[in-house]
Amino acid sequence: MALYVQKYGGTSVGSIERIEAVAQRVKKSCEQGNQIVVVVSAMSGETNRLLGMAKALDEHAARRELDVLVSTGEQVTIALLTIALQKAGVDAISMTGDQVQMKTDNSHGKARIKTVETENLQRHLDAGKVVVVAGFQGRDEDNNITTLGRGGSDTTAVAIAAVLKADECQIYTDVNGVYTTDPRVEPRARKLDRITFEEMLEMASLGAKVLQIRAVEFAGKYNVPLRVLSSFEEGEGTLITYEDVKKMESAIISGIAFNRDEASLTISGIPDEPLVAANILTPIGDAGIDVDVIVQNAHSKDGLVDFTFTVHRDDYQAARVLLEKTCAELSGKDVQGNDRIAKISIVGVGMWNHPGVAKTMFEVLGNEGINMQLISTSEIKISVIVDEQHLELGVRALHAAFNLDVA
Amino acid sequence: MALYVQKYGGTSVGSIERIEAVAQRVKKSCEQGNQIVVVVSAMSGETNRLLGMAKALDEHAARRELDVLVSTGEQVTIALLTIALQKAGVDAISMTGDQVQMKTDNSHGKARIKTVETENLQRHLDAGKVVVVAGFQGRDEDNNITTLGRGGSDTTAVAIAAVLKADECQIYTDVNGVYTTDPRVEPRARKLDRITFEEMLEMASLGAKVLQIRAVEFAGKYNVPLRVLSSFEEGEGTLITYEDVKKMESAIISGIAFNRDEASLTISGIPDEPLVAANILTPIGDAGIDVDVIVQNAHSKDGLVDFTFTVHRDDYQAARVLLEKTCAELSGKDVQGNDRIAKISIVGVGMWNHPGVAKTMFEVLGNEGINMQLISTSEIKISVIVDEQHLELGVRALHAAFNLDVA
Repeated sequence: MALYVQKYGGTSVGSIERIEAVAQRVKKSCEQGNQIVVVVSAMSGETNRLLGMAKALDEHAARRELDVLVSTGEQVTIALLTIALQKAGVDAISMTGDQVQMKTDNSHGKARIKTVETENLQRHLDAGKVVVVAGFQGRDEDNNITTLGRGGSDTTAVAIAAVLKADECQIYTDVNGVYTTDPRVEPRARKLDRITFEEMLEMASLGAKVLQIRAVEFAGKYNVPLRVLSSFEEGEGTLITYEDVKKMESAIISGIAFNRDEASLTISGIPDEPLVAANILTPIGDAGIDVDVIVQNAHSKDGLVDFTFTVHRDDYQAARVLLEKTCAELSGKDVQGNDRIAKISIVGVGMWNHPGVAKTMFEVLGNEGINMQLISTSEIKISVIVDEQHLELGVRALHAAFNLDVA
Repeated sequence: MALYVQKYGGTSVGSIERIEAVAQRVKKSCEQGNQIVVVVSAMSGETNRLLGMAKALDEHAARRELDVLVSTGEQVTIALLTIALQKAGVDAISMTGDQVQMKTDNSHGKARIKTVETENLQRHLDAGKVVVVAGFQGRDEDNNITTLGRGGSDTTAVAIAAVLKADECQIYTDVNGVYTTDPRVEPRARKLDRITFEEMLEMASLGAKVLQIRAVEFAGKYNVPLRVLSSFEEGEGTLITYEDVKKMESAIISGIAFNRDEASLTISGIPDEPLVAANILTPIGDAGIDVDVIVQNAHSKDGLVDFTFTVHRDDYQAARVLLEKTCAELSGKDVQGNDRIAKISIVGVGMWNHPGVAKTMFEVLGNEGINMQLISTSEIKISVIVDEQHLELGVRALHAAFNLDVA
């Protein structure tokens, strides 16, 4: 008898009919002799409906009260799914975050899980019940309601799987697994049967938004086998595991991630001093703008350097204004920018002992006439910044070159 | 500095604008130097919206899960009202039923309050905060979510006023107080400045639905001064108090209650035996039908009796079918019924030492040509059953005869 934690997102429980469909899927898992904990999100649209009312009262409502408000969304879903399960003949019971004793820190709206009590969960499982748990929510040590932030239900599911030592944490979504790249860009993209946590982290952070990155980190930390499956069709999905004995056999490259909404900014002709990077990036960070790729060129003969970084395209104008102010203060030459760029990354744990991978990537792109404006590398990924019109061509060329369409 | 518990119902918090209006009203009470606990219901329509979804899944959903579901309604309101209060510059904090430690028995959907913890409430009040509490909800001893049943927010408010020893529990509604009778029937009806708990109980149970009867009982038991006011207009409302030293001065009759939706059933010619009433009423009670007035006539010469009772008009047909079965079993003569009747009651603690009250009532109705089909009396009320077309005429005649339009 296996113990599975299954998580269904807002789209999967977005209507009465879909809740009934989820109940049938859970019932099937039970009938196969498994113990099941289900973690659910709010019905799609509900969180935004609630936040809309709060905004109408106050654009800057207190986070504590917003957590009291939005946590009702998941509570509605657990009740409805439990009713649907009971109607389908499955013995089930709902539990809120505080009934599970999901304890978090007090960072309202982005709380981090500290402990999860297993006693209540285990008691209901031992009694043969399916336990339906509200995702996304917890309580701080003063019993205030907290939420984990958008997508936090994935993290709830992983945390529960970790403390219960579940055989698998199954994340049901509207895609049937993790692909070598986005099938809308490369129709020959192939679903992966498995991927390592490290690769998944790079894929997720690079724009392949199947799982919340915090949930993946959490699963990796507590060694919880994670599986991504479709709520709407049958299939084995993609299993996300620790890098294991199969590493030697694994493909050099597992997938190609990309991100369209990038913009780059370059400040030129600034003095090469130890604190220059901090001086440039501090105002950007203080303005709440996330910086992605950062490149500083080698020293030039005159002791001046160029410094380039990328931001989300929405932050481009704000970042540019700040950078021009910094440029004047540092007596730099000028600021240049480009908000029509994209990032392509190849990801794979296999690349660490295949030094030719970077060369192959650059050759493939060069042969297609694609100019690389920035290059950034880590142990398991190589990212390049290109003109946005070259994105699809680049992804398809790399997909073919690394044989990703062949299992 | 006075401590008030203010309760606002679903209509009073039914929209963003109304929540803002409640916030202004609470702010004004604070500025007058009072400590305030606010108890709120779900926004009007919300409870039915939630129950509609549950019904779509299962007409007979488990009460435990329905409580998990509908208790979200009040949680939404406490968050929104707290946000509105903070926006208006009032230091406020929301508390759910479990944060207040509102402990109930485990009768889901109609739970009774057992204990309320004052520690958390008092701590926030001492810190100068307005505390916004979710009405209607609690937790049983196993930490399951419970609800007190429709209108339970009144009971929540009274319970909190009792444990905090509040100076008043103020129930804000869509009427501005308790009237001598319904102003839609008698335009000369007058708002009462005060009424005793006993009179209020009779008025409420007789169809003058201003307050939940359980809340009034609770207030009487714990000696909580209760005041009914309007959410929408200024005024002192009606204070509901213990029968006190002013009793001697009080008017003989405080008000006239009535109920249109009655039906009567009479079973004739049955043997006069000790268990006959139980035999007749047991099947009715088992079918979930509430019986109101009950009258059994004096013994007739042949040892046979007639037995009459009234039920809600909606239950008339079902009750009649059951009664005809009983009639056959008891070898009775026949069953007769009338579903076009109404009940008029005069209520007043002053009537106990004014024996002429009943005579006056019967004379007034008789002079108007109104036939009384049944009469039932208690210490502080006299009820008569009349043809429904005589309801308005009877109420107006009695209102004038007992000088209720004069303060």
